[in-house]
Amino acid sequence: MKVVTTIKDMQALILKQKSQGKSIGFVPTMGFLHEGHLTLLNRARKENDIVVLSIFVNPLQFGPKEDYAEYPRDFERDRALAESEMVDFLFYPSVEEMYPTSPSVKVTVQERTDVLCGSSRPGHFDGVATVITKFFNIIMPTRAYFGKKDAQQVAVIEGLISDFNIPVNLVAVDIVRENDGLAKSSRNVNLLPTERKEAPVLYQSLQAANAAIDKGERDPIKIIDMIREVIGNESSGVIDYVQIYSYPQLKPLEKLEGTIIIALAVKFTKVRLIDNIITKID
Amino acid sequence: MKVVTTIKDMQALILKQKSQGKSIGFVPTMGFLHEGHLTLLNRARKENDIVVLSIFVNPLQFGPKEDYAEYPRDFERDRALAESEMVDFLFYPSVEEMYPTSPSVKVTVQERTDVLCGSSRPGHFDGVATVITKFFNIIMPTRAYFGKKDAQQVAVIEGLISDFNIPVNLVAVDIVRENDGLAKSSRNVNLLPTERKEAPVLYQSLQAANAAIDKGERDPIKIIDMIREVIGNESSGVIDYVQIYSYPQLKPLEKLEGTIIIALAVKFTKVRLIDNIITKID
Repeated sequence: MKVVTTIKDMQALILKQKSQGKSIGFVPTMGFLHEGHLTLLNRARKENDIVVLSIFVNPLQFGPKEDYAEYPRDFERDRALAESEMVDFLFYPSVEEMYPTSPSVKVTVQERTDVLCGSSRPGHFDGVATVITKFFNIIMPTRAYFGKKDAQQVAVIEGLISDFNIPVNLVAVDIVRENDGLAKSSRNVNLLPTERKEAPVLYQSLQAANAAIDKGERDPIKIIDMIREVIGNESSGVIDYVQIYSYPQLKPLEKLEGTIIIALAVKFTKVRLIDNIITKID
Repeated sequence: MKVVTTIKDMQALILKQKSQGKSIGFVPTMGFLHEGHLTLLNRARKENDIVVLSIFVNPLQFGPKEDYAEYPRDFERDRALAESEMVDFLFYPSVEEMYPTSPSVKVTVQERTDVLCGSSRPGHFDGVATVITKFFNIIMPTRAYFGKKDAQQVAVIEGLISDFNIPVNLVAVDIVRENDGLAKSSRNVNLLPTERKEAPVLYQSLQAANAAIDKGERDPIKIIDMIREVIGNESSGVIDYVQIYSYPQLKPLEKLEGTIIIALAVKFTKVRLIDNIITKID
């Protein structure tokens, strides 16, 4: 595995691989790899000649009051994990390398952002779409792998790829969970011990919602109320949102039908967790 | 020469050429080709294995009160000219092909836009940068050719390529002029006959400015006043702006030094013309 820190070197290495007809699988991350990331890397390894992992905590996608400084980082651990997953290139640029000057352009996301995490994180998806645009130009991937845990991110990047005609295939991979159901996240380490014990209730509330839908409930307000009640009863976390939309359009629904996302965000002392289920109603 | 109207076909053709190691020269235009465009095509032909010309009048870069509907179009004439310039692929998509849905993302240009044409054309460079981002993903050019007539466009696209790490070389080509000095433009056909006779005064005023700088004048206000006076005396056109900036940064100057652009825009009855000179002061 080769660690690459400059854009120039990365582009030259990729162009060489592409000139030999090699397919490129790309897994963009902010590091502090967990099993969710490893699942993406594993899938990329199976489907491509070359696997590129990027580790970059992107300041553009953090708001001024968000956890950019606290975001967990452990490069040596990540490097060892990447090596064990048979990554070919680990792209690990500095902030100065990615943003050497105040950028003259950015990507503005105009749809699919005023709901879910977007409404409480203004500018977040502009930052995501901008850095992903840069990565796509640097890595030129055949396939790019994203976890469905951030389902809104997947929806935004689907729009980015489609609207900008980016020649890449998006592969959206199912959420990987702990044994108790908590969705894997780099941020989970910032839960207090008592909060860690409560946190599985997020997924339990989504499962309860799913069970109610299976029994015939079609009113989104009733489903949302049920989820709020489950979380409120079982957790010290403060609910940021519980929302239901069509997926991937992220439009409101009066009645549950088609493919829907039920998504939630809960704030704990030092960390805000998200989870979702995407389900198709027949 | 092959005329290609769909993005899917265009990307497939380009990927095939690239897999054979061919270099791609790209000339984006809005059609109604004039000698300026032919100069770009000629240069692209000399420097690349494959030449792609795009013809697309991009609605995104026209304001609501601008000349999108009146912009001149003549596809059959353009096709014959492209053929004679040995273009390999003429990419000619419809508006519906380029923007099938209301886009969820766009490129926002944050610098180099609040001066020159940008100040009187809000959103214009967002539209330019967005469509060029799409074209770069569709055509995947080795080199892209732009005329220096729209020097601000060149400066914005330099920023776009640099900030988004787009793997393309920008080639900026000198302005091509009529014998009487008028910069070639598709819009010149919309000048009234009397206006066409006056229009060379735009370049004459820039030449007068250059002569004054050669003689030692370093005050931008005096140069601007001189240009305004020449145009005001000799033309019925209404001056939109006469401005001097550092180039390509497009920052104001108190004293003329370094590489500068002197740029102007003049409104005639049915058309607004631009011209500029870029000059290095020792």
